[in-house]
Amino acid sequence: MKLRYGLGLAFLSTLVAGAALAEGDLRTRAKGLFEPVPASVATLAGERVTPEKVSLGAMLFFDQRLSENEDLSCNRCHNLGMGGVAGQSAVSGHLGELGGRNVLTVYNAVFNKSQYWDGRSEGLKEQAAASVMANPHALLKARGGPMLGSAAELVLTRQHAVERFKAIPGYAEPFKKAFPGEAEPITYDNIARAIAHFETTLITPDAPFDLWLKGDDKALTDEQKQGLALFIDKGCAGCHNGVNVGGGGYARFGVVQNPGPQYLPPDDAGRAFITKSPADKYVFKIPGLRNVELTGPYFHSGDAEDLTTIIRVMGTSQLGVKLTDDEIGKIEAFLKSLTGKPPRIVLPILPPTVHVSPTQK
Amino acid sequence: MKLRYGLGLAFLSTLVAGAALAEGDLRTRAKGLFEPVPASVATLAGERVTPEKVSLGAMLFFDQRLSENEDLSCNRCHNLGMGGVAGQSAVSGHLGELGGRNVLTVYNAVFNKSQYWDGRSEGLKEQAAASVMANPHALLKARGGPMLGSAAELVLTRQHAVERFKAIPGYAEPFKKAFPGEAEPITYDNIARAIAHFETTLITPDAPFDLWLKGDDKALTDEQKQGLALFIDKGCAGCHNGVNVGGGGYARFGVVQNPGPQYLPPDDAGRAFITKSPADKYVFKIPGLRNVELTGPYFHSGDAEDLTTIIRVMGTSQLGVKLTDDEIGKIEAFLKSLTGKPPRIVLPILPPTVHVSPTQK
Repeated sequence: MKLRYGLGLAFLSTLVAGAALAEGDLRTRAKGLFEPVPASVATLAGERVTPEKVSLGAMLFFDQRLSENEDLSCNRCHNLGMGGVAGQSAVSGHLGELGGRNVLTVYNAVFNKSQYWDGRSEGLKEQAAASVMANPHALLKARGGPMLGSAAELVLTRQHAVERFKAIPGYAEPFKKAFPGEAEPITYDNIARAIAHFETTLITPDAPFDLWLKGDDKALTDEQKQGLALFIDKGCAGCHNGVNVGGGGYARFGVVQNPGPQYLPPDDAGRAFITKSPADKYVFKIPGLRNVELTGPYFHSGDAEDLTTIIRVMGTSQLGVKLTDDEIGKIEAFLKSLTGKPPRIVLPILPPTVHVSPTQK
Repeated sequence: MKLRYGLGLAFLSTLVAGAALAEGDLRTRAKGLFEPVPASVATLAGERVTPEKVSLGAMLFFDQRLSENEDLSCNRCHNLGMGGVAGQSAVSGHLGELGGRNVLTVYNAVFNKSQYWDGRSEGLKEQAAASVMANPHALLKARGGPMLGSAAELVLTRQHAVERFKAIPGYAEPFKKAFPGEAEPITYDNIARAIAHFETTLITPDAPFDLWLKGDDKALTDEQKQGLALFIDKGCAGCHNGVNVGGGGYARFGVVQNPGPQYLPPDDAGRAFITKSPADKYVFKIPGLRNVELTGPYFHSGDAEDLTTIIRVMGTSQLGVKLTDDEIGKIEAFLKSLTGKPPRIVLPILPPTVHVSPTQK
């Protein structure tokens, strides 16, 4: 009896040690591929992020006057209460015109090496500047291709934006504080810069995956750990890696097998429109997968509705692997461990437009 | 020298006493007409306002899924960062269709005796319910008149709304907490009720006028006090009184003199569409004037851009008085003392829609 008990204990401790070793191995491999989302971001493009820039950027992010018809804000498509996306495959912009591509989230976008599905903007500032003023019609005509907006845009010209915000008395002080020492701080560049600085605060640390990466074994379920192992072993992590579990480069959609027109509409050639290189046909930015359970629908086309579909299609089109339902379920469980803690955002109170009576002019 | 000094002092103290007396008189008159915005509202339609209802209501207020196309929220037209209005005379709703009337603010709407410009909803709950499901086209056809929306509406049917919110797993708990003891808390009525309870928190206490009403002589400038006296003496306060400086009843626009089609488009007969009484032709709700400097453009038509214009037009059309520029300036200064402190609103994080792959169904 005593012997059997002793043997049982020894067997159990071997099992536990084996599991711990396997978990340690998995964590070591994962740490080589991924990084936790940090608690905060101190600089953007070499410039210090200040509370004053962030505060002004938050105002601008929610201000509908940043669109030509004063009816759309950044938050219209990058809804901060909804994962930083629109929750729709096609989003209407200026005059209800539909954008040509699925909206990418602003959450953790600061960790991406480029912005937009075709990577045409390098930084957050450039993306903000482009989305406010880009005219999808003009882009469409100029490039002879489909509308290139990651989403529909706000169609406010550079000059008009500056004039409009200079005419709002309540913006003078926030711009002055955000850009001290500048004689005329209300510029188009500073509008985009402030939005970009606000966006550095749109990060979601402390996802279960991050807590696990940092050593908390219990932060992931066994199914999620198995999903992570599959995510690495099957090759997903070859592209989806780094802080943002993606966002670091480009890949051709359909590198092994064309996913078909349902997910890859033939008239959107992706990065080839930007680089003019035939080699970039159907090449798109590898999207980051942080908070992916909140950012549907999926793909640049926005034509995939659920995680199951994208895992299956990625397997066949990118990896040449037909994943089983069991594998898909485990990878999906892992992807859900990438949902972090969104920042607490206080809705900014915006200064009013002051209209002057014609008799007072 | 001593005598003159003594006389001077006596003269000065008489002046001060006179000013104090006049100020006391003005305050006594004002207290008979107005009330300060309270710090909070404890009940709505006899029902206790709870943090759980308010929290759920905030989520729904910002949730675009409360519109048929999942692209518009209450906050789209009642922008809480912009005085609770859209900042535009005509606001596009479902499919970009323009609303027929200027948006009224949700701030302090709890103090109004009725909602909408024609008063067709009694309470906040009824207004919320109507705005979500009303179809401007149907209304237009049914009534043979112009579109009656206070703004464009969200065109989500009662049944569809309930189905959609029942299908979002993350809403189960907030509804259960907001309406404890109900077997099936996700109902259309409860959606509207929660929004209404959230709206009881959208009040703006501590405006300079309120601080002055409570005894702080320095809260208003002399010009504002003179404006208040004019506001009472000229008759404005006959309609614009109570907590909300209006919102307590109805008045015919153009009771003395028709303001002309620019401000009173002949095809919108106002409350007559609701009551079917010819006596109610061009009768509209008297809007509350709290935060009026933030809620332009003005009038039910949204065709007046600035305070100067509305004060002038109200004088001629409602009171038969041609106010001087000096009087208009003073009344405008007083109206600006009605801007209170907006609540601090934390942007709610909304639960995701969960899409299920066809293969998993």
